[in-house]
Amino acid sequence: MIGVAVVGYGYWGPNLVRNFWETPGARLVSVCDLRKERLATVQTRYPAVDITDDFEEVLRDPRVDAVAIATPAAAHFKLAMKALMAGKHVLVEKPMAATSDEARRMVEEAARRRLVLAVDHTFVHTGAVRKMRELVEDGLGDVYYYDSVRVNLGLFQHDVSVIWDLAVHDLSIMDYVLPERPVAVSATGMSHIAGEPANIAYLNLFFESKLIAHIHVNWLAPVKVRRTLIGGSSKMILYDDLEPSEKIKVYDKGITLNGNPQKNGEKVYQMLVGYRTGDMYAPHLDVAEALGIELRQFIDCIERNENPVADGNAGLRVVRILEAATQSLAERGRVVELEHMRRIA
Amino acid sequence: MIGVAVVGYGYWGPNLVRNFWETPGARLVSVCDLRKERLATVQTRYPAVDITDDFEEVLRDPRVDAVAIATPAAAHFKLAMKALMAGKHVLVEKPMAATSDEARRMVEEAARRRLVLAVDHTFVHTGAVRKMRELVEDGLGDVYYYDSVRVNLGLFQHDVSVIWDLAVHDLSIMDYVLPERPVAVSATGMSHIAGEPANIAYLNLFFESKLIAHIHVNWLAPVKVRRTLIGGSSKMILYDDLEPSEKIKVYDKGITLNGNPQKNGEKVYQMLVGYRTGDMYAPHLDVAEALGIELRQFIDCIERNENPVADGNAGLRVVRILEAATQSLAERGRVVELEHMRRIA
Amino acid sequence: MIGVAVVGYGYWGPNLVRNFWETPGARLVSVCDLRKERLATVQTRYPAVDITDDFEEVLRDPRVDAVAIATPAAAHFKLAMKALMAGKHVLVEKPMAATSDEARRMVEEAARRRLVLAVDHTFVHTGAVRKMRELVEDGLGDVYYYDSVRVNLGLFQHDVSVIWDLAVHDLSIMDYVLPERPVAVSATGMSHIAGEPANIAYLNLFFESKLIAHIHVNWLAPVKVRRTLIGGSSKMILYDDLEPSEKIKVYDKGITLNGNPQKNGEKVYQMLVGYRTGDMYAPHLDVAEALGIELRQFIDCIERNENPVADGNAGLRVVRILEAATQSLAERGRVVELEHMRRIA
Amino acid sequence: MIGVAVVGYGYWGPNLVRNFWETPGARLVSVCDLRKERLATVQTRYPAVDITDDFEEVLRDPRVDAVAIATPAAAHFKLAMKALMAGKHVLVEKPMAATSDEARRMVEEAARRRLVLAVDHTFVHTGAVRKMRELVEDGLGDVYYYDSVRVNLGLFQHDVSVIWDLAVHDLSIMDYVLPERPVAVSATGMSHIAGEPANIAYLNLFFESKLIAHIHVNWLAPVKVRRTLIGGSSKMILYDDLEPSEKIKVYDKGITLNGNPQKNGEKVYQMLVGYRTGDMYAPHLDVAEALGIELRQFIDCIERNENPVADGNAGLRVVRILEAATQSLAERGRVVELEHMRRIA
Repeated sequence: MIGVAVVGYGYWGPNLVRNFWETPGARLVSVCDLRKERLATVQTRYPAVDITDDFEEVLRDPRVDAVAIATPAAAHFKLAMKALMAGKHVLVEKPMAATSDEARRMVEEAARRRLVLAVDHTFVHTGAVRKMRELVEDGLGDVYYYDSVRVNLGLFQHDVSVIWDLAVHDLSIMDYVLPERPVAVSATGMSHIAGEPANIAYLNLFFESKLIAHIHVNWLAPVKVRRTLIGGSSKMILYDDLEPSEKIKVYDKGITLNGNPQKNGEKVYQMLVGYRTGDMYAPHLDVAEALGIELRQFIDCIERNENPVADGNAGLRVVRILEAATQSLAERGRVVELEHMRRIA
Repeated sequence: MIGVAVVGYGYWGPNLVRNFWETPGARLVSVCDLRKERLATVQTRYPAVDITDDFEEVLRDPRVDAVAIATPAAAHFKLAMKALMAGKHVLVEKPMAATSDEARRMVEEAARRRLVLAVDHTFVHTGAVRKMRELVEDGLGDVYYYDSVRVNLGLFQHDVSVIWDLAVHDLSIMDYVLPERPVAVSATGMSHIAGEPANIAYLNLFFESKLIAHIHVNWLAPVKVRRTLIGGSSKMILYDDLEPSEKIKVYDKGITLNGNPQKNGEKVYQMLVGYRTGDMYAPHLDVAEALGIELRQFIDCIERNENPVADGNAGLRVVRILEAATQSLAERGRVVELEHMRRIA
Repeated sequence: MIGVAVVGYGYWGPNLVRNFWETPGARLVSVCDLRKERLATVQTRYPAVDITDDFEEVLRDPRVDAVAIATPAAAHFKLAMKALMAGKHVLVEKPMAATSDEARRMVEEAARRRLVLAVDHTFVHTGAVRKMRELVEDGLGDVYYYDSVRVNLGLFQHDVSVIWDLAVHDLSIMDYVLPERPVAVSATGMSHIAGEPANIAYLNLFFESKLIAHIHVNWLAPVKVRRTLIGGSSKMILYDDLEPSEKIKVYDKGITLNGNPQKNGEKVYQMLVGYRTGDMYAPHLDVAEALGIELRQFIDCIERNENPVADGNAGLRVVRILEAATQSLAERGRVVELEHMRRIA
Repeated sequence: MIGVAVVGYGYWGPNLVRNFWETPGARLVSVCDLRKERLATVQTRYPAVDITDDFEEVLRDPRVDAVAIATPAAAHFKLAMKALMAGKHVLVEKPMAATSDEARRMVEEAARRRLVLAVDHTFVHTGAVRKMRELVEDGLGDVYYYDSVRVNLGLFQHDVSVIWDLAVHDLSIMDYVLPERPVAVSATGMSHIAGEPANIAYLNLFFESKLIAHIHVNWLAPVKVRRTLIGGSSKMILYDDLEPSEKIKVYDKGITLNGNPQKNGEKVYQMLVGYRTGDMYAPHLDVAEALGIELRQFIDCIERNENPVADGNAGLRVVRILEAATQSLAERGRVVELEHMRRIA
């Protein structure tokens, strides 16, 4: 039995609490929040769970093996480092930290102490995203592009831009699904409210191969869109997370190239482009709650001393891109190299 | 009666011929194409219309007041200049020319000879785009962003990239609809076929105000998408050209800002963001064929010595952006300034 | 404070409990169910609420002013009658009873004892259905037709047909929205599983006017559909309950009749039919949880001695149609008159 | 070479003319219409084709082997009979005739003279409908239901109800796709315009097996819908004719029955119903123009003395149902038996 404490009972904390409560192998020991009224809610719903507004108390509690951190991102680093130093395994909300430097130090600390450090990239545990990874590994051929749109109205945040709030999802999915890691990023965007961070942004991700990725995020759209296109040389995927049942559609469409290029006037080699239009199919997807799967895996990793799918390095890679994109956005889309990305295991 | 010759009877020429045939005030005199079999088709369908494979003959024909040019873009400049120099009014397909320098010389030649020079930006004559302009002028408030997606499978072109083929539509619509002109452009993209131009591209357009524009074009998408979002401070538009009837949806949605900003910790001023979610409506749109409206207007402009909605300057502005975007794409999205844009009346 | 007991903690009971818990003016006294494990769940979630497996105990409890019955429909009559006879106000799940005779006796008992008898026609408390009623009352003109499709895969029931399971929703909505009550019903359908009730059915409802209504229900459809069309002489409504935001669309479309009919060959009078195609709009809808509104109203009605929107008579009318449709279905669609419908106040 | 005359150049005639013009093996000899201005249009477009307003002239013309009749339905019988008696093969628009008696006499006349009699059930030649037949023959298992919705605004007709105008399409598709023929029909509907035929109708078709079919047609709907659901024991089909590319979706969904029924209280046998939810796929469809395929087949049948897919008997079966449905509608849905349907080969 792994004893767990959840820190932060705001927007996402209740989901962690509910799921840990039902995760086999986990025992929910306590919930920590600075707000008394949030703790009162916990007490009513889970009378058997301890409540506290003192994080140090959580760290001292010998029943607590692991700490799940669901506070605002600015506090992730401090809380996670304290937990690791107290010998606790850590699951931290995304984005993992406020800077890549913080994230790197968290990874190093966990490695040094042989503790599990997991990042709550919830999407990578959904049936849809796991199916996409499967398809990218086997079926799509060479991956040509990854294009994602994640827009809706609100919820404006005051401390971080729409990149940190929405693009973080796409970056965590890409990190899991794509066979390659980006080498550079550029971003454009705009704040339409004086003194506030950007509410609309476009990210370009560059790779060493011909793969190209693009993310559009927007807090000020009249409609909600959650659509990703992945183009491959053999097949193409449309992932629409708002579809109630067929979230993933696989198209047997593409171009075919004539192997015997033609001489054509001045241009010596010109490929003949043909089109292939075959069936579409929507694979049946596992509909189990992603967070439940993730928490079981977190507990398993602690018990077996294994690495989670979304580990500290995955969290670090995502934060590094968020950071670089933020920098690029401030300079009208200057390309920012992601030098060390390949070295983050 | 304005005598008209159509030059080029390939993909688009037949639409020009069919519409000029039915345009009051126009008399379709002749069709010119280098391919005998295309001319034979004209003769069967329009026995009363002259056919010729000699452009000079068209220029010499005193019955011809105006020439409509629907050849590949590379030939536009040469043919249009000859026609203007022969004293003919000109309607030229989009993109107007292969370079902004060519386009500028066409504009100057037409101005010098007081001839009408129109560019076939067909979309600006649709009911949907005209309604958008109306809404942008009165109803949307400050325009925050213009975001367009125009993707589908094929038709790959060998001489120009997807920018010149697809983004030209969006740029011509933006030029007509938006209250401002861009001051710089950047573009990223990729060719996935060796030796061919880019088949996927993303354009960013920068303005002096907080307006931001973005265009995504792709020849290699599994689904066809034609969607534009325009966000304003008062209302927002979704324009989906594939919707059979409700192409334009106007959302009474947005944010409201508290005029009395709060002191909030270190941050001295922080606006309170509220959300407004009202009705949506889809205005009834004029469904008359855009090309028919455009050609009547072209004839009217010749008769009244007026300037068409999409004149040579509009064509020049669009070509200048295409050119700059192409340059930017080759340099991984370097921002290219559009210095003279504001001076193009 | 109105003391409430909820009887039946299966599929729907938890929603009643959760909402009564938060309804101002209501005090959730106890939950009754025959299954110990269901009661244990209640105790964990709501330690302050009494639990019992003895319905008589509920009836004897002087703190209980009202009983909400969420058991299988077969038990509604017996439990509700006992509750009424014990002087308790009653809210009963839909369908209100297994036969119209039972429903009528419940109505009479409640009237005799001046107790509130409400039926949980939840849909009539949604923002969408309330808006439809508003539009039908003012805006649609003469109502021509009401057409509803409610199909999906599962959940097959063994004791009642798809009519009692799905059409009950449409009939309760129609009862609330339409200005007229049906005078006859016919139904066709089929059971595709030996020994089981019909899993697909089509209902026709006849009215004295030219209004016509039709309901299609199906447990064996590959896709989920929840769509209602209401046609009027002035406007038409499309109600799609699966739309995340624009559930109600109002079309300013229809036909116009030439007041001056023409002589046309043998036919002496022939109206000229014209078409009107105006704007569409999607009104903003109240998104408050319907059940919460309904329970507040139930409590209000008890306090003020008023009649709820969906009272016993509404429940009776719906059950009478379900009963007649079931009879018709067994006779290949024979029309069954609903003689007394107009007399049910 | 088969010489063809087209009679009637109104709404559909031009499509026949255009397609016969391009059909290998066919020679378009003449077009006949009573309206001079329609003939003038033919002459302009097809100078090589004879025009005439005298049907007898067509019949006398030895170059004419086959006559295609695209006049109003009321005239089909008279014109087709004359053509058959003159020894001409006949292709007639749908509905084939105004009564089943007329249709039967046409079939008999053609049989007696060994002439090809084809009915223009265009839909059965589309890629989508041919694919559905394939799937019904192999893949769907037992067919449980066929449910079609065909609604839109307009075009009101004065001489026939919406059943003859719209349901004729569904009936011709069903006749081709389903493995069984209906034994009875009932219909309800309403005319909302005084003195005009019904503008909304619902048809039920009864079969000897557990198959059930239903058609909803409506001239007064605010949206256009063309959707058919076919449920089978193994798979289910959604056919949406308005989808630009994926018109046919095949769902591997359904119920599974436990072969070992349970004793359950009083009910001795109760099947356990399980649900199967597998992949969906959208097969690639042939996009060739249906009418072109149909006309080539008509010419082939004449040359090889074969029977077309939609022959006189198919046309007769459809007319018999239309006639019976019309009768049923007038009697509030009384079931009308289709006694002879099985005998129509």
